[in-house]
Amino acid sequence: MPRYKAIIAYDGTLFAGFQRQPKVRTIQKELEKVLTKINNGQKIKIHGAGRTDKGVHALNQVIHFDFPRQYCKEKMRFALDTKTPNDIAIKSIKIVPNNWHARFVLHEKTYEFHVQILKPRNPFKRKYTTYFPYPIELARIKTAIKFLEGFHDFTGFTASNSKTQKKSRTIYEASVKQINDELIFTFRGNGFLYKQIRIMVGTLLKIGNSRMELTQILKILNEKKRSLAGPTAHPEGLFLKKVRYFS
Amino acid sequence: MPRYKAIIAYDGTLFAGFQRQPKVRTIQKELEKVLTKINNGQKIKIHGAGRTDKGVHALNQVIHFDFPRQYCKEKMRFALDTKTPNDIAIKSIKIVPNNWHARFVLHEKTYEFHVQILKPRNPFKRKYTTYFPYPIELARIKTAIKFLEGFHDFTGFTASNSKTQKKSRTIYEASVKQINDELIFTFRGNGFLYKQIRIMVGTLLKIGNSRMELTQILKILNEKKRSLAGPTAHPEGLFLKKVRYFS
Repeated sequence: MPRYKAIIAYDGTLFAGFQRQPKVRTIQKELEKVLTKINNGQKIKIHGAGRTDKGVHALNQVIHFDFPRQYCKEKMRFALDTKTPNDIAIKSIKIVPNNWHARFVLHEKTYEFHVQILKPRNPFKRKYTTYFPYPIELARIKTAIKFLEGFHDFTGFTASNSKTQKKSRTIYEASVKQINDELIFTFRGNGFLYKQIRIMVGTLLKIGNSRMELTQILKILNEKKRSLAGPTAHPEGLFLKKVRYFS
Repeated sequence: MPRYKAIIAYDGTLFAGFQRQPKVRTIQKELEKVLTKINNGQKIKIHGAGRTDKGVHALNQVIHFDFPRQYCKEKMRFALDTKTPNDIAIKSIKIVPNNWHARFVLHEKTYEFHVQILKPRNPFKRKYTTYFPYPIELARIKTAIKFLEGFHDFTGFTASNSKTQKKSRTIYEASVKQINDELIFTFRGNGFLYKQIRIMVGTLLKIGNSRMELTQILKILNEKKRSLAGPTAHPEGLFLKKVRYFS
């Protein structure tokens, strides 16, 4: 059975997240519904590179699925794109080997987090940025964010109810820039824990606002206590920007 | 009683238009509700430069209202901005003479119309562009759009049930450019009829798609028949961009 890899984008606003769950609208559910329909009612299951949370967006999420017939790429892309609701777009499709897997093949992910920092709040960005109209010293954030790069145990930066055993990950790049009225945080790494990026951003904003020491980042990494970190930033500023596979 | 002029922005998606109407959510209604509340329940009425339709956005709409107390500008802006829903922003406020009027003082308006022309449809732009993924010859639109500039009777470009008597207006500038996957139309004029811009854009897209002659614009202007023009483009691509007063 041919295996298809697809790059998709979605506006997370009206979804309860990527992963299938009972009674709520999720990206996985919408895609599987359409694929199953195209397959005359025989169930098709999809696998995503990452499970974005409720309200989180994706510019280039990667999924794969097995489908009993071999379609040409553009025909499959067009069918899926036109049949899915218009807050999901199918950007490209290709056929991959049967042992390729969107989640298990080694990869790195890049996330962006957008924060609107100037008043008044832009009504067109209210679903795509988090609003933080308080004094910010950008240089403080630029220094502190570098402490996050490298191989660390990120226990202190994940939700305290996280069930994941292994909490060490590598962040290859952590940076921030200001473009007009927005701060844009970029995090590139081999994997991120549940709510990790939102807690890192919440902590960095508190540092930028001078309500927390720069070195608090090191303390959180060492002591591994969620209570030492800042609040969890709202999900609407978070975008899964890119997934890059090493094979 | 001091008269306040305000520049506001709104995302038109969830509004039935600018103007107060019974039983539906409108921009005028939301603003008057907040102002009346700030005024301890004594009714305040606002006047807008233009009445945008259902689903149409504004980057810089201008309104005025009389308010019995003199507040400092930033205090009034902040109060209004924080009390209105977050799809409306109050960008600036100033006090104007008592005979100044947002609608009746001579002015020109600039509208932009955004069309997404490439596939797949961008889910983040679905509320802020109209989607037209068909072949377009941009040079045809660039030629045809210039026929709209100048002083004309625009009867053929307005909804056939329009009750306005005088249907002549001046368009100072009509232009189009492509930026990435979008066509951006700009119209600057001393006033526009009901649905005029959406019908002009619908007609220009049909010309760009080679399903209508370039010179059809001249025919519509001469014969003044709505039936000669193209379809009315969807409202979500339309933005009131600027209102410039001559006094």
